[in-house]
Amino acid sequence: MSLTRFMDLADFSREEVEDLIALSNHLQTHPEPQALAGKILGLVFLNPSLRTLASFQAGMARLGGNSFVITPGQGTWGLETRLGVRMDGSAAEHVREGLPVLASFCDALAIRAFADGKNLAADVADSTFKAMADLIDKPFINMESAINHPCQALADWKTLNDLEIAPRAKFVLSWVPHPRALPLAVPAAALHMAALRGHEVVVARPDGFALPEEVMARARAAAAQSGGSVTETDDQQAAMQGAHVLYAKEWGCTRHYGDAAADAALRAGLEHWQVNNDTFQGAVADCRLMHCLPVRRNVAVHEAVLDGPRSVVLKEAHNRLVVQMAVLHRLLA
Amino acid sequence: MSLTRFMDLADFSREEVEDLIALSNHLQTHPEPQALAGKILGLVFLNPSLRTLASFQAGMARLGGNSFVITPGQGTWGLETRLGVRMDGSAAEHVREGLPVLASFCDALAIRAFADGKNLAADVADSTFKAMADLIDKPFINMESAINHPCQALADWKTLNDLEIAPRAKFVLSWVPHPRALPLAVPAAALHMAALRGHEVVVARPDGFALPEEVMARARAAAAQSGGSVTETDDQQAAMQGAHVLYAKEWGCTRHYGDAAADAALRAGLEHWQVNNDTFQGAVADCRLMHCLPVRRNVAVHEAVLDGPRSVVLKEAHNRLVVQMAVLHRLLA
Amino acid sequence: MSLTRFMDLADFSREEVEDLIALSNHLQTHPEPQALAGKILGLVFLNPSLRTLASFQAGMARLGGNSFVITPGQGTWGLETRLGVRMDGSAAEHVREGLPVLASFCDALAIRAFADGKNLAADVADSTFKAMADLIDKPFINMESAINHPCQALADWKTLNDLEIAPRAKFVLSWVPHPRALPLAVPAAALHMAALRGHEVVVARPDGFALPEEVMARARAAAAQSGGSVTETDDQQAAMQGAHVLYAKEWGCTRHYGDAAADAALRAGLEHWQVNNDTFQGAVADCRLMHCLPVRRNVAVHEAVLDGPRSVVLKEAHNRLVVQMAVLHRLLA
Repeated sequence: MSLTRFMDLADFSREEVEDLIALSNHLQTHPEPQALAGKILGLVFLNPSLRTLASFQAGMARLGGNSFVITPGQGTWGLETRLGVRMDGSAAEHVREGLPVLASFCDALAIRAFADGKNLAADVADSTFKAMADLIDKPFINMESAINHPCQALADWKTLNDLEIAPRAKFVLSWVPHPRALPLAVPAAALHMAALRGHEVVVARPDGFALPEEVMARARAAAAQSGGSVTETDDQQAAMQGAHVLYAKEWGCTRHYGDAAADAALRAGLEHWQVNNDTFQGAVADCRLMHCLPVRRNVAVHEAVLDGPRSVVLKEAHNRLVVQMAVLHRLLA
Repeated sequence: MSLTRFMDLADFSREEVEDLIALSNHLQTHPEPQALAGKILGLVFLNPSLRTLASFQAGMARLGGNSFVITPGQGTWGLETRLGVRMDGSAAEHVREGLPVLASFCDALAIRAFADGKNLAADVADSTFKAMADLIDKPFINMESAINHPCQALADWKTLNDLEIAPRAKFVLSWVPHPRALPLAVPAAALHMAALRGHEVVVARPDGFALPEEVMARARAAAAQSGGSVTETDDQQAAMQGAHVLYAKEWGCTRHYGDAAADAALRAGLEHWQVNNDTFQGAVADCRLMHCLPVRRNVAVHEAVLDGPRSVVLKEAHNRLVVQMAVLHRLLA
Repeated sequence: MSLTRFMDLADFSREEVEDLIALSNHLQTHPEPQALAGKILGLVFLNPSLRTLASFQAGMARLGGNSFVITPGQGTWGLETRLGVRMDGSAAEHVREGLPVLASFCDALAIRAFADGKNLAADVADSTFKAMADLIDKPFINMESAINHPCQALADWKTLNDLEIAPRAKFVLSWVPHPRALPLAVPAAALHMAALRGHEVVVARPDGFALPEEVMARARAAAAQSGGSVTETDDQQAAMQGAHVLYAKEWGCTRHYGDAAADAALRAGLEHWQVNNDTFQGAVADCRLMHCLPVRRNVAVHEAVLDGPRSVVLKEAHNRLVVQMAVLHRLLA
């Protein structure tokens, strides 16, 4: 399989995903410290990062390559993404110049750009991100867009493999509390990943927080290919019956998308959606907790669970490095 | 030609400039991925950057070297540049300690420090920057000072070569609108570069925005050496007659230098200086648009020009990487 | 000597310290540009830095390794350090997840986390830092904690060696003025270092600024091992009689620790503690000035001293790079 873009896990078949993970595993046991010698990865962060920022730099270095980091608004001026606008505001440069220039300095470019959080249709269509990607004529990596996070999804898939969670196992994606609305990228990516892996997927979320129909439909189509299933419910406890994996994630109200006051009103009184030890009543004995991190302790998930044996969040995070090295190898070696 | 400082294109003859560009071209076709193995470049940014930040890191990496970035005020405290001051303000460290220390960690140091924008004579003399450079006993690079930007000038020269623009061709440096006053470094450097290359140079700028006499005189002296010419006008349309290159640039009012209110008053009503397709009436058919970037679309230059065939702004930006690799090679290999 | 942590100079005997410095000297004359090939150092800065940020990156590069920098609050969200807290504030991630994740991406992790400045007992016990270090299962480096700065202490020891200052020479650690309270890490580390090296150490500090008894006791114990001595006084001029080295440092009021108003009240009127040429009356003729930097010129130390022959502050700073290369080599080669 040749690779020029890593934009969306849905661009790949199950076999291609497993092939990337096999390469990940191979690189762990058979390091290739010169595979990307002389190659340069440009990393553009329009939003904050910890795991992604560190793991892409570390992954390039472990393969013998180099990287540079651009953080518009910090050391670099803000970048304008809207087309046709008269640029008399704070952004000094447009992505139409900035991104091709950066791409011309490196061998591959990776971009993080979160959802705007105002227009649900535009965010679900990932239109701003796709327009940015179209400006780049080099190998390209999505480090989290409005509606996708394929690096996280690939790391999560590998984590399920590592834990020997059977493809038919029950995978519960549950909404959890957070002080404010967060983007839909990770829940959408995790849902699709679990469906494509063949799981019995249940999305548990409060009323008003249903994932967009396009996201659900895409997951159902993936499940249909893989022999899995996708359902949804507003009853977290019911969802957890017989669960093998609880994937906890925070996201914003979709009924009143972009309306912070309406979101806050709906969110108040949902503290009982926090994951704690009781949440696992009815699940299988060794049901695992997954979370992409960062996680707010004692808000989204109780620390007793995070510090206990169910949690595999550190393994998931470490797998970010491992799978990204395979993606970089495929794109650049 | 041996090189220990890259401070000002005026330190070099036409032949020496062409020699650097020849090395740039050579390194593109004959990469030397180990030329700077073990060498370290320190990059100090007292002001924001995109191209310079990315291209110097990428250039060192392509030559096998390494770099580190220091951004005073972001992760590092502010640096004081004034001599003799009692340091009881916000700056915790003086350049007299900070810069020699950083230089002692690396093999070459590069600094960006924009104009203060208050005292025209001091900015034109580049006195703060020269005082900083005098503290460094290592190979040194000017990544844009109060009145100079030799890396940009060298990239622009190479761009003119790449486009096969004849040395006698008409080169118009035109002021263009911007929401606020910008420094004189790029217009001064571009003017001198074009004069030294031998062009018929016309500076078009509104009343009140004339470049300082020292800057004009230096360019006329360079033109005299090269058989070119330097004139100025406040009539952009007249300047464009027969032009082969339009170099658009924003800069601040020089008549009331450092007076933001006076600058804004003069600036209002100058929107017609924006470059659009009509600006090229009277120019040669394939007249090019150059700009150092970042450019404010639909303020300084209309997007129809930036996205059209006249624009060579991406080529200019890419040439930053290419020529800087030659400078680094000369300084460190 | 094998090494897995570089947390505190007090973990080492005099002989082990000299052994690290011997390795430093060896690496200067016998570079090992491939010693750490393929190795990655993670650098986490919870507080600003200039020397540490640049020298660790440069040191890894000179040994053939790589590094990445994480600066919580700048490009990365804030990190929570308190245990058991309900994370509904501004910090999005807890160190209990963030630090092990970062450690899992690299071969060694280094952290800077200054004192909280509120609870003297907690800061002297270095409890927050030690809790962070306990989360890391990789080689670990203290880049300055609440009460320690072993990299600075090791560089200072080497500087004293380089200057051929005899172990029995008189070493004066003097408080100097600063606009506000600074942490106790450097004075505590410098005091212990000088005592362990065997000096006649005098701590000169105004009333209200005595170093904590635990810090003094630890230094006295080190002096007892080495045949040195540790005393304290509030008379800077008396302390300087016969001094071979003046180590100037700013720190906060310990009598009213964490009380900014009380600190400011005590601090007013102590301007005469500034080091100037008169301070050296009574000292030996070639008495040296040491300071860890950054230093506020004409507040803490007069520029006539900093720019004069007594000052060895640039040598101290350069030695940061030199000794840290030995630490990295021991931890990772």
